[in-house]
Amino acid sequence: MNSTIQVTVWNEFRHEKKNEKVKALYPDGMHKVIADFLGKNADLQVRTATLDEPEHGLSQEVVDNTDVLIWWGHMAHGEVSDEIVARVQKRVLEGMGLIVLHSGHFSKIFKKMLGTNCSLKWREFAEKERLWNIEPGHPITEGIGEYIELPNTEMYGERFDIPTPDKLIFISWFEGGEVFRSGCVWERGHGRIFYFRPGHETYPIFYNEQIQKVITNAVRWAKPRIIMPDKCPMSQPLEPLENKSNTFGAAGILQNG
Amino acid sequence: MNSTIQVTVWNEFRHEKKNEKVKALYPDGMHKVIADFLGKNADLQVRTATLDEPEHGLSQEVVDNTDVLIWWGHMAHGEVSDEIVARVQKRVLEGMGLIVLHSGHFSKIFKKMLGTNCSLKWREFAEKERLWNIEPGHPITEGIGEYIELPNTEMYGERFDIPTPDKLIFISWFEGGEVFRSGCVWERGHGRIFYFRPGHETYPIFYNEQIQKVITNAVRWAKPRIIMPDKCPMSQPLEPLENKSNTFGAAGILQNG
Amino acid sequence: MNSTIQVTVWNEFRHEKKNEKVKALYPDGMHKVIADFLGKNADLQVRTATLDEPEHGLSQEVVDNTDVLIWWGHMAHGEVSDEIVARVQKRVLEGMGLIVLHSGHFSKIFKKMLGTNCSLKWREFAEKERLWNIEPGHPITEGIGEYIELPNTEMYGERFDIPTPDKLIFISWFEGGEVFRSGCVWERGHGRIFYFRPGHETYPIFYNEQIQKVITNAVRWAKPRIIMPDKCPMSQPLEPLENKSNTFGAAGILQNG
Amino acid sequence: MNSTIQVTVWNEFRHEKKNEKVKALYPDGMHKVIADFLGKNADLQVRTATLDEPEHGLSQEVVDNTDVLIWWGHMAHGEVSDEIVARVQKRVLEGMGLIVLHSGHFSKIFKKMLGTNCSLKWREFAEKERLWNIEPGHPITEGIGEYIELPNTEMYGERFDIPTPDKLIFISWFEGGEVFRSGCVWERGHGRIFYFRPGHETYPIFYNEQIQKVITNAVRWAKPRIIMPDKCPMSQPLEPLENKSNTFGAAGILQNG
Repeated sequence: MNSTIQVTVWNEFRHEKKNEKVKALYPDGMHKVIADFLGKNADLQVRTATLDEPEHGLSQEVVDNTDVLIWWGHMAHGEVSDEIVARVQKRVLEGMGLIVLHSGHFSKIFKKMLGTNCSLKWREFAEKERLWNIEPGHPITEGIGEYIELPNTEMYGERFDIPTPDKLIFISWFEGGEVFRSGCVWERGHGRIFYFRPGHETYPIFYNEQIQKVITNAVRWAKPRIIMPDKCPMSQPLEPLENKSNTFGAAGILQNG
Repeated sequence: MNSTIQVTVWNEFRHEKKNEKVKALYPDGMHKVIADFLGKNADLQVRTATLDEPEHGLSQEVVDNTDVLIWWGHMAHGEVSDEIVARVQKRVLEGMGLIVLHSGHFSKIFKKMLGTNCSLKWREFAEKERLWNIEPGHPITEGIGEYIELPNTEMYGERFDIPTPDKLIFISWFEGGEVFRSGCVWERGHGRIFYFRPGHETYPIFYNEQIQKVITNAVRWAKPRIIMPDKCPMSQPLEPLENKSNTFGAAGILQNG
Repeated sequence: MNSTIQVTVWNEFRHEKKNEKVKALYPDGMHKVIADFLGKNADLQVRTATLDEPEHGLSQEVVDNTDVLIWWGHMAHGEVSDEIVARVQKRVLEGMGLIVLHSGHFSKIFKKMLGTNCSLKWREFAEKERLWNIEPGHPITEGIGEYIELPNTEMYGERFDIPTPDKLIFISWFEGGEVFRSGCVWERGHGRIFYFRPGHETYPIFYNEQIQKVITNAVRWAKPRIIMPDKCPMSQPLEPLENKSNTFGAAGILQNG
Repeated sequence: MNSTIQVTVWNEFRHEKKNEKVKALYPDGMHKVIADFLGKNADLQVRTATLDEPEHGLSQEVVDNTDVLIWWGHMAHGEVSDEIVARVQKRVLEGMGLIVLHSGHFSKIFKKMLGTNCSLKWREFAEKERLWNIEPGHPITEGIGEYIELPNTEMYGERFDIPTPDKLIFISWFEGGEVFRSGCVWERGHGRIFYFRPGHETYPIFYNEQIQKVITNAVRWAKPRIIMPDKCPMSQPLEPLENKSNTFGAAGILQNG
């Protein structure tokens, strides 16, 4: 791992084509806006990938050369190929970072990494959200003050069906009366995962400088600390040890016990 | 949930048919021995299910009427139907308990619940294992002293590729020089999961009274505390709130945002 | 541990004597109201203890015969004797349950158990609070629906300086714009700890039936699963082992190494 | 926080004066050996402090200028002043890193940070220990392979009475049959804590290059990510809010409620 972080921003890129208002906000797609603000940092080298490209833009070569993958999806979760999802999961377990944004909570890759339904309450009233920073010492909140305010957002409310996060970074307050665990981190295999709630397609969330700061911080936090392929090896003993298995063992034991 | 716990003991039941030594140990299958010692407890009502039965013995009706599912598999993990695995996962997330034994670490259901490779080191030398009880106050170790000794076992060694357990219950010492996190608990959705390392098919592990005690305790610990189907509802505000989404919103938003 | 749970409700009992409005609400002290609603349950045997009694009502005999201790304090935290705090801490580590209410976040015993400052933001505007139940399967929330609403409370806001809870049970939404981790559990030694935010002395919080239900549930959850005195023993080897320490060892090693 | 890390190595420094064998191994004290190997790294600026210096070498100025404090103590834990311990705890909660070695498990500062007894089993037979690295991707194990072997050590065995670590880094195997959680990390306040088991005074542990590597890695991992003094502020509302507390409030509410 050299000092430049290879980032791939993946976007479903459908709302931006189908919906005039979303297109007006993000004419080249949300991935383009995200890639642009990340790309201003000298230590980040950023590419994008979208659903309708071959292999969703996530060929083995791209995945092998990605340090941190950012994921935005919503209306077409079901169109993402299981094979690509398995490829991404394998790479996260080897050490690649994964940042899942907003409606990506229902993406195949997020549910596969966590093993839960990842369901929640929701409402689209364009209400106010205030994300409280409860881990001011965490690298993901560096430079963020006590909270982030978003004047208009979709609401996500608890109970969010996720495994208990290793660290809870942000808790959201919503104007309509709900709360939400809006920034959560987990480690799986050798990889780091960050879920970040903001990012609805009909609001200019990805133009917000604090949101940009959090995502930029998260990329640096999630970069691989090691890349280590999975293995399940038969191991020789480290202490003097007689093999007594013939006393009990038998033919027919075909694989790892 | 009445006071009787409905237990289903699932076994692949292949080694016992193919291997003379395993057959000699467990003539009617490991599931039968497990069901027998559990069945001696008045509060447990026990049935069994095996791979080669229709729907692997895990019809929707069986799953819906199971409080705690015990899982043993090894040589035929790949033959377990994805549909049945999804059915079991859904039920665990709703609240059913799941106890995974020994080589079940590589089962589809365990990997799906945890999201990791679940790989480890292994060796079959029939060596000594000592499981240290590091949570003497946990219900799973009730009546177990400081440790359990097994004179002959297969070795499993770290690194075990699992998410950090909510609680680590047992750590194993092996004669050949390794250690292993042999008893681990997690919660996923509303369900509880216990992984317990012992249980190799060529050793009389399931006849060991302390092992029987741990599994019996674990069944009681893992029983549902609630059964709650998944949902992802649109929610009305709890505070006075104007719907401003038309200002931003648009057609084409088809599902949960 | 027989089936009756011995509960001791500890209250500083100063506001109720000094402040006419508090006295009007809780004429015999908050401890009396708490003891009364708990005492309606046949499985709970309840006594009270207050700051101004000898040994604060927490003699060794009382502590030794308490399964679950409930703690309310605020204006006189500093008057609680360090010796009594050490006695309570020792008992929690042996297995006694501890439930800390509201302003008890700044009590000596809570800070000693957790090792952090336990500080927070606060405001007394008699505003609305809504406690979201994010663990509907946890015994502490049994019978509580999606949330609890309190029309008038003091506000506590994040960042709450506590170690990451083992489980986060409630998150509060406040009318004035803050959020708070209002229900948190930890295990320390063999004991269980529950912090529950509501309980301000100038509002009728402890008359609220849902609040009463949570505290009652918490008592049952926190009861000892084991009582085990601390020890730090020299241990004989379990495997054949020559003592080679004379090769290296020396006089002057006076205690546990 | 500039790029140089200020390290203070604290040692009780008694065994080295009283015991000829320890003196032969560590003629200038263990702190000197630790400071020397750390000092070879250009990014670390290292000083030492010992029990018998004024304020134990931990004046307010020293503590305020320490990024990471390393602690070794054993026979004189009781002689460490409570005032100095409170000073160190305060600084850890503000963000300073703390690395506790070996018999420091019973130090006042470690027990105060964790809130538990920190007791364990022990034996001094100069037996073999193998520390298994179960987090190969963690910065603390960078450059360490699958395990570290120490030919002669004191044994520490489970149950180690600590709060569940945020991450378990090393598990030890002992020749005499025990296991131990030998590398554990926690966060408290804004500070990071690492407990590392090896380091007995009668064995040349601190001359072992892998042990030196772990401690060096740990210093870099534990450096402050933020320094933030504790506060417990009264907060103005962020939403329009009428102060209704006069309806309920009263005189006599003297401090944080």
